[in-house]
Amino acid sequence: MGFWKSLFTTTDTTTESSSQKRDRASLSPVTPQTERIFFSTERDIDLYDLEELCDAVGWSRRPLRKVKKAIQHSFLVVSMWEQQGNRRRLIGFSRATSDHAFNATIWDVVIHPDFQHKGLGKALMKYLIKKLRNDDISNITLFADPHVVEFYRNLGFTPDPEGIKGMFWYPD
Amino acid sequence: MGFWKSLFTTTDTTTESSSQKRDRASLSPVTPQTERIFFSTERDIDLYDLEELCDAVGWSRRPLRKVKKAIQHSFLVVSMWEQQGNRRRLIGFSRATSDHAFNATIWDVVIHPDFQHKGLGKALMKYLIKKLRNDDISNITLFADPHVVEFYRNLGFTPDPEGIKGMFWYPD
Repeated sequence: MGFWKSLFTTTDTTTESSSQKRDRASLSPVTPQTERIFFSTERDIDLYDLEELCDAVGWSRRPLRKVKKAIQHSFLVVSMWEQQGNRRRLIGFSRATSDHAFNATIWDVVIHPDFQHKGLGKALMKYLIKKLRNDDISNITLFADPHVVEFYRNLGFTPDPEGIKGMFWYPD
Repeated sequence: MGFWKSLFTTTDTTTESSSQKRDRASLSPVTPQTERIFFSTERDIDLYDLEELCDAVGWSRRPLRKVKKAIQHSFLVVSMWEQQGNRRRLIGFSRATSDHAFNATIWDVVIHPDFQHKGLGKALMKYLIKKLRNDDISNITLFADPHVVEFYRNLGFTPDPEGIKGMFWYPD
């Protein structure tokens, strides 16, 4: 966690205050030469930036029209940005669907390879979980690829609790 | 499937035509002595009827205010009704959250014990899947309790495909 904590520290920004200032990148003047990482829950993400991020981790391309619709209809969208001077760069993304009451399911968690292994994925997830908990969502779920099960376990996620199985439907 | 098929048959109603007539219960006059089972995607379900149904299968009670909110914010809500003459009775329920584009997750699948083991759960799920597929949702998911994994497997759901794990978050 040292990497991003130090970046937050340089601008006196904690995870919490960055969430309060989530519109800053689009609304406020930026001091040149300041380097920081911040979260945003805004949905007006440039879809080509997002596609570039997903390309970087090798995901299959998806129609941008559908990506736009999915973002619109997600309960929560969290993006992570690196800001250097006047430039900002999309370096992380995640979103959750929800019934706004009981359940949420997290999808599309991605961190740019240049920024992996620095605790940023953990920071993104913690931010997302905190937001969902603040909205009184009690059941936070996800479907984890085998190589990230341990990552999510370390964040407090349990695989198959009480034998509950994640299942996917495929046509016969 | 014989039981509900024969009920549908008595009114010349198939699964498809019952969906087209899904507003009938609230909109159309009903011929007395007609017995049939039909689906509805209407959301104006009496919450006390739904609570009674969930009580019957032993689920923990949930605040009706939150149940109402969850129904409002689900992508799809499917209820199943038995109609006898002028009376109708809620005998099944299910709903799905979704991003309206790629993913859906099915929650709260319930069939009244009096109507279990007659193929109605299967009919309800097939109706739900068909609706989701018609809306171009490619990834249909759910979390299955151990005793219903086989039920869902028979419907075309695969547990842990390619090692993907369903995970639930619990506070530390």
